[in-house]
Amino acid sequence: MKELQGKRVSIVGATGYAGGELAAILARHRGVRWGGIFSGAGGGAVPFGGLHPALAGAPGPDAAPFTVDALLAGEPDFVFLATPHEISAEVVPEILDRLPGVRVVDLSGAFRLPAAEYPRWYGFAHPVPGLLPGAVYGLTEWCDGELETARLVANPGCYATSALLALKPVLRFLDRAQPVVCDSKSGVSGAGKKADFAWSFTELFGNAKAYAAGTHRHEPEIRRHLGTEPVDLCFVPHLLPVPRGILSTLHLGFAGETSAEELAAAFGAAYARSRFVRVLPAGELPELKAVVGTPRAEIGFAVFAGGRRGVVVSVLDNLLKGAASQAVQNFNRMAGFPEEEGLA
Amino acid sequence: MKELQGKRVSIVGATGYAGGELAAILARHRGVRWGGIFSGAGGGAVPFGGLHPALAGAPGPDAAPFTVDALLAGEPDFVFLATPHEISAEVVPEILDRLPGVRVVDLSGAFRLPAAEYPRWYGFAHPVPGLLPGAVYGLTEWCDGELETARLVANPGCYATSALLALKPVLRFLDRAQPVVCDSKSGVSGAGKKADFAWSFTELFGNAKAYAAGTHRHEPEIRRHLGTEPVDLCFVPHLLPVPRGILSTLHLGFAGETSAEELAAAFGAAYARSRFVRVLPAGELPELKAVVGTPRAEIGFAVFAGGRRGVVVSVLDNLLKGAASQAVQNFNRMAGFPEEEGLA
Amino acid sequence: MKELQGKRVSIVGATGYAGGELAAILARHRGVRWGGIFSGAGGGAVPFGGLHPALAGAPGPDAAPFTVDALLAGEPDFVFLATPHEISAEVVPEILDRLPGVRVVDLSGAFRLPAAEYPRWYGFAHPVPGLLPGAVYGLTEWCDGELETARLVANPGCYATSALLALKPVLRFLDRAQPVVCDSKSGVSGAGKKADFAWSFTELFGNAKAYAAGTHRHEPEIRRHLGTEPVDLCFVPHLLPVPRGILSTLHLGFAGETSAEELAAAFGAAYARSRFVRVLPAGELPELKAVVGTPRAEIGFAVFAGGRRGVVVSVLDNLLKGAASQAVQNFNRMAGFPEEEGLA
Amino acid sequence: MKELQGKRVSIVGATGYAGGELAAILARHRGVRWGGIFSGAGGGAVPFGGLHPALAGAPGPDAAPFTVDALLAGEPDFVFLATPHEISAEVVPEILDRLPGVRVVDLSGAFRLPAAEYPRWYGFAHPVPGLLPGAVYGLTEWCDGELETARLVANPGCYATSALLALKPVLRFLDRAQPVVCDSKSGVSGAGKKADFAWSFTELFGNAKAYAAGTHRHEPEIRRHLGTEPVDLCFVPHLLPVPRGILSTLHLGFAGETSAEELAAAFGAAYARSRFVRVLPAGELPELKAVVGTPRAEIGFAVFAGGRRGVVVSVLDNLLKGAASQAVQNFNRMAGFPEEEGLA
Repeated sequence: MKELQGKRVSIVGATGYAGGELAAILARHRGVRWGGIFSGAGGGAVPFGGLHPALAGAPGPDAAPFTVDALLAGEPDFVFLATPHEISAEVVPEILDRLPGVRVVDLSGAFRLPAAEYPRWYGFAHPVPGLLPGAVYGLTEWCDGELETARLVANPGCYATSALLALKPVLRFLDRAQPVVCDSKSGVSGAGKKADFAWSFTELFGNAKAYAAGTHRHEPEIRRHLGTEPVDLCFVPHLLPVPRGILSTLHLGFAGETSAEELAAAFGAAYARSRFVRVLPAGELPELKAVVGTPRAEIGFAVFAGGRRGVVVSVLDNLLKGAASQAVQNFNRMAGFPEEEGLA
Repeated sequence: MKELQGKRVSIVGATGYAGGELAAILARHRGVRWGGIFSGAGGGAVPFGGLHPALAGAPGPDAAPFTVDALLAGEPDFVFLATPHEISAEVVPEILDRLPGVRVVDLSGAFRLPAAEYPRWYGFAHPVPGLLPGAVYGLTEWCDGELETARLVANPGCYATSALLALKPVLRFLDRAQPVVCDSKSGVSGAGKKADFAWSFTELFGNAKAYAAGTHRHEPEIRRHLGTEPVDLCFVPHLLPVPRGILSTLHLGFAGETSAEELAAAFGAAYARSRFVRVLPAGELPELKAVVGTPRAEIGFAVFAGGRRGVVVSVLDNLLKGAASQAVQNFNRMAGFPEEEGLA
Repeated sequence: MKELQGKRVSIVGATGYAGGELAAILARHRGVRWGGIFSGAGGGAVPFGGLHPALAGAPGPDAAPFTVDALLAGEPDFVFLATPHEISAEVVPEILDRLPGVRVVDLSGAFRLPAAEYPRWYGFAHPVPGLLPGAVYGLTEWCDGELETARLVANPGCYATSALLALKPVLRFLDRAQPVVCDSKSGVSGAGKKADFAWSFTELFGNAKAYAAGTHRHEPEIRRHLGTEPVDLCFVPHLLPVPRGILSTLHLGFAGETSAEELAAAFGAAYARSRFVRVLPAGELPELKAVVGTPRAEIGFAVFAGGRRGVVVSVLDNLLKGAASQAVQNFNRMAGFPEEEGLA
Repeated sequence: MKELQGKRVSIVGATGYAGGELAAILARHRGVRWGGIFSGAGGGAVPFGGLHPALAGAPGPDAAPFTVDALLAGEPDFVFLATPHEISAEVVPEILDRLPGVRVVDLSGAFRLPAAEYPRWYGFAHPVPGLLPGAVYGLTEWCDGELETARLVANPGCYATSALLALKPVLRFLDRAQPVVCDSKSGVSGAGKKADFAWSFTELFGNAKAYAAGTHRHEPEIRRHLGTEPVDLCFVPHLLPVPRGILSTLHLGFAGETSAEELAAAFGAAYARSRFVRVLPAGELPELKAVVGTPRAEIGFAVFAGGRRGVVVSVLDNLLKGAASQAVQNFNRMAGFPEEEGLA
């Protein structure tokens, strides 16, 4: 195994769920030297070992309160931002300006949509619309050379990753006159760390609910990154009584009679060489627990109604392939490391 | 409170989940005297108090091994069958023949479809197709006088109840050119009592999966009982990591621009006087836990895409409104009791 | 069934978990007319149907913000207080003074210990120590005539109920030179409604922990109400990842060789006629789920080490037999109703 | 990082829970070349990627049906047996006889007790009592040179590991006249893969129970390996509604007044240099979820009753530190690898 050329890496927002996973992955990455680790805005100092159960007792820098100055003082080659959308939108231009050569992977939604969509879906006018065209949308398996040179990567949302991985390979079979229904189910950590009665154990144990029907921010994100032709998408997320994991069920109408073999070939063409997307045999649908705690998505599909309709189901861990491990896939591509480094 | 004229009631299959719930409900029903209680076919004797936690220490007949002779010896006025489809199909004609005046509520799928559908969906040719036209489909809120005189009631399936209650009031708004997508999520008890590794705690804890996409028996049941005009229905059930409860998400395309007010009016017209179906204000979507352990369904809905699309979500307890408590609603109507007797 | 002479009943703290259970039980109690229903101190108005899932859509008074004046204006015959300790200690004397004839069941710990214990265990000097000697400790099965005339009943704590029901019948077998170890495990609702990250779903799912070893308030409560001879008790509570239920394991050393038959006889003598405490056959240990959602405790025991040691395990629902349903047992005794009224 | 001298390693019983964890750990161990992988006795062939979620898609030998001949044909240097007690007792002598130089780590209970104890606790007379004195009890942190030369290691039981790690450092403080109470709580996977109604999701969700009070096989194992002076131990295991993890609560009486500082010093002396046992600051009690999925035990303690009594709480993952990862710690010591290889 050849030595990796080490990069200085900093994390902002390491005290959140996705940030903690990032710290745990990067702590075992052979190409990482720590630039610095920072809490979210307003957060205090947290010992390195307290960022994630896997880090208990492990050596590493404590998380310090975040300021741009403190971040830049660490002279990072790479910065991971696991920060709220508004914070990312605000600090990314400053980071890129003040530290030539630094490269950023942003896990928020701040750089995933065209500027015109931000007021409606995020509630703010984008402060630096000029950065948006150059931001690479880091759905790793669908990137083709852009990551290698990107200065700013917009890491995809968890729901969006699960939907896009399932849909992109089979787009050409769809009857565009019918809407694609994406019925997604997410574990509770998708909402972040919550001190809120509605997110208490007693309220959510044994519970489930739909929410944000037609109004969730990942709906325009999926639509935007699905392809160039418009798709009529209907996205309804649900809360599952599990801490981690997303299961997305894509209900599809086909333009012509479509066979399981055709879908299998399309998925195979897309993912046969992928380390982190696994396609199940036709008719076999994936289970959430097969991917929780792993950096992998699994995809299954079934065809019915005489080949006129089908379903594609994808599962992934919302904090890993839906956030932190995909961010590290992107980082590995950007830095020229093997894509699976830190993730095996 | 006026005295109720008592009926002799027997349960077959009281050792299953739905049968145990039936026993618990009927034990507190003021119009019930026990004819007899029976295990499923091949089952042994079980003490009354062991049929359900609520019955521990309560007086009542022990469950005896089932034979038609033993059942008829109890001279029941009403028989509840919580038995496998094939058993129900076999014993119902014998029960009706040998005991004039007896009336049957069958919780299996044996009398819910036209005869022609049984080979494909249930794997057997129906043995008594002549009984099918007279069997009343007991979706209580949508029955109008048929229950009062029925000798045989086909109690609806759990998924079918959740889908039909959600869809029937809004059928007239649908764009028939688009399929209705019914994405349902069920707790584990929907599969019955299982001694099977796949149903073990360790396998299902924190898990979720889709199954039987396009091949579940409740799909033709929903289609059949939705109305007279054909609907293109796509039904995909999922397993939720909870013991009880169904949440069904109905994804709808409307024929014209449809407002939340129109849907609210339609649901209100259907259920305003119902004790057991509760409609939430427009835009509010129901939670599973609000109905688990209750005989109630709750329905919520939202409209989006400028009134062209919407979602209706219904929740119920699969063992109660999806099985036992709906069976008792039907029994109450058949016997002339107040519909809520035993269920308050 | 003879008519019950109705009592005017008020609840304070109906928006908490125990208070909501009280409302649900009393709503089906044939001897209750509502005086008033109140939120906890500082709480706002809440619709009656929102107090408990079983009350959705049911008629009853909305919960109003609590003041003593508002409570007394309802002229209750009985008041249930499901309020914090300090609030109960403060308002009970005022209620008893200003409304002659009113009787109070207090679910807090404000009247369970001798005055001298309050500073250490509750952190305040008791404001009305003169009321403590007259407060009846409402461990219903062990009350003998006191409830019938009590003006103030101190409803036992949830852990204390589970420990005392298990220990009191077998006290005479104990080797007093050895400590009794009470290792208790409680569901999360024991802590009340929490808007706190430590009580979030994500933190507690699949988790368990011990806490407050040697420092929990129920330890002196158990010791005080165990009997007149001192017992060396060691109490360690644990948090279980379930919403409801307590399982207490009492580890005992016997003074002489003790047989399972002797223990069975002792438990039988204590509870054979009890509707709400069920003793299992020797060697059979109870399960939590048999009692969750019921007003019942179950007790099992086993003897080992040649009759020198044994274990008694008790289970109950912390919100019911550990709080609300025991409060209603006490109310029924106080009011001369059948003990099971509202609880069957 | 220096290259490791590879060893040929075989696993028997890789289709069980502990065997699957072993396969997952050894697959990332840099000193392992596969000899062979085998199902349990009577089991069929299983693809390598199906042995554990972390192995999906990974390269490695499929699990073959187990025979001693097939095992020996792989010429392993090391054999891990994750087999039933009787099978281990039967095949170990044959393996050691027929393959000189092979070394065995047995995860069953077949070599943990003196021969005289097997009839009572395991229900069989030990077939090769002569092997028992030479078997090294592999509680890794308490081994001192024996592992390096051992041919047969008896890997400790999960409960026994949790109790022994907690008790051994503080033995000298105990009042031997009082029994030590070990109240343990285990996740469901401790029972292995079960196709049994009692282990179904629906039965165990939200449930908890004590079992095998005074009769569990790990009680004599703990007693045997605690030290040379006899301790009066009372062990009561419980089932927790989680898939993985053990929390053991040790209730202790001290011979003299004992301070938290003395306990802290004792635990520090035992584990300060351990990678896999972490001691919390005095008064802080550990949480199950901090160790689930990790090879680590965590221990906390508290002193009360004026220093006369205390509690030690230990948590670990029953399939890792309680089985597979401890087996790999032992293997690493036996083979001269760094103790954390494969486990970091």
